Amino acid sequence: MPEAFDQHIALTVDVVIFTLLDDELKVLLIRRRHEPFAGMWALPGGFVQPDESLEEAARRVLYEESGATDVYLEQLYTFGHPERDPRQRVVTVAYFALVSADRLPLDVQSPRSTERGWWPAYEPPPLAFDHADILAYALQRLRYKLEYTAVGFQLLPETFTLTELQTAYETILREQLDKRNFRRKVLSAGILEETDEFKSGGHRPARLYRFRREATVESTARRLFP
Amino acid sequence: MPEAFDQHIALTVDVVIFTLLDDELKVLLIRRRHEPFAGMWALPGGFVQPDESLEEAARRVLYEESGATDVYLEQLYTFGHPERDPRQRVVTVAYFALVSADRLPLDVQSPRSTERGWWPAYEPPPLAFDHADILAYALQRLRYKLEYTAVGFQLLPETFTLTELQTAYETILREQLDKRNFRRKVLSAGILEETDEFKSGGHRPARLYRFRREATVESTARRLFP
Repeated sequence: MPEAFDQHIALTVDVVIFTLLDDELKVLLIRRRHEPFAGMWALPGGFVQPDESLEEAARRVLYEESGATDVYLEQLYTFGHPERDPRQRVVTVAYFALVSADRLPLDVQSPRSTERGWWPAYEPPPLAFDHADILAYALQRLRYKLEYTAVGFQLLPETFTLTELQTAYETILREQLDKRNFRRKVLSAGILEETDEFKSGGHRPARLYRFRREATVESTARRLFP
Repeated sequence: MPEAFDQHIALTVDVVIFTLLDDELKVLLIRRRHEPFAGMWALPGGFVQPDESLEEAARRVLYEESGATDVYLEQLYTFGHPERDPRQRVVTVAYFALVSADRLPLDVQSPRSTERGWWPAYEPPPLAFDHADILAYALQRLRYKLEYTAVGFQLLPETFTLTELQTAYETILREQLDKRNFRRKVLSAGILEETDEFKSGGHRPARLYRFRREATVESTARRLFP
């Protein structure tokens, strides 16, 4: 297989890690220490090791950089433009992950350091390589999945009020949703179940809901919103 | 970047090429001449060359094996299990392509040779490597896209009757569709336009339709069928 040995293509994974934090959709970014793009922000990533599958590589990066395990992770797209890395040919398999903020270790939730931090996903700083394209693609996929599947529950705590759910959807979709319409659609979609608990604090106690266990990510085969 | 040079991961593309031929959904397969899996059927594929993007590599393979150019091609998924190739680590970026049979060069439409041929996509022969997984994934994506987008027109000639369209959908989805429901949905989806031409031969002449130019693959953001 001489063609293969002559290839010299390096293979990496990059992981777009989204969370909802401070009423905003955030993405985890790491500041690059070395050239190229030293000092710029980039998505967490790394080389695929010889003995690990692509998903294992992505889970390793996810854990190393965010401390999160057992979270929603999905292969996004593979980016392979010949000049995307100025050093050598590097092809990257991009993943996206959704992490509920209450499942992140405390030190990752803390305010941005100069080395790593949660940035607004829709207003990131300038990014190294083609990471702005990767992030844009991930946002598009997230919006799409939010509209067609129950994937949003990955970003929420286990129980939540309908107002909290609507706020989360509005934050990610970046648009106002009509309250009555939203409730009708989300309740008729059969993806939620009531709990016996209520959240107090507002005008009157609000019932807490959770996503039904059966409402897996791919199963809601219809458009939820708008 | 020593990690990269130690990787020795080869990168290929494999292309799942679908067409509708003889009232069946077919996939193009090539018989392997060399080990491993010599004599077995496999998806068309090849190594990514140093100067070509992933999509360029896929289009090259598509052209070399089917003679088709300017057809619908979409990145499917990247398969990278460490042991998917018994020789060395090979990661493959899978694409799927949809080709209308009337756009295939004649020699590729001809009956199966011992070297290459169109096989029933749902009943393929045993396949080399993990190509059965790749084909299954492509079928799932095709069915999904057929239900949610206007991608089906890529498999049809430029004009067609509603009966021909329904037959195509039934063939790909492998289920009977109710005629009245089908017509109502497909006509109200706004993806078709009437032509002034009719096809004779049946009980009475049937109007020929075409897909509207604006009905691009991604734009029909709702479920068409069932």
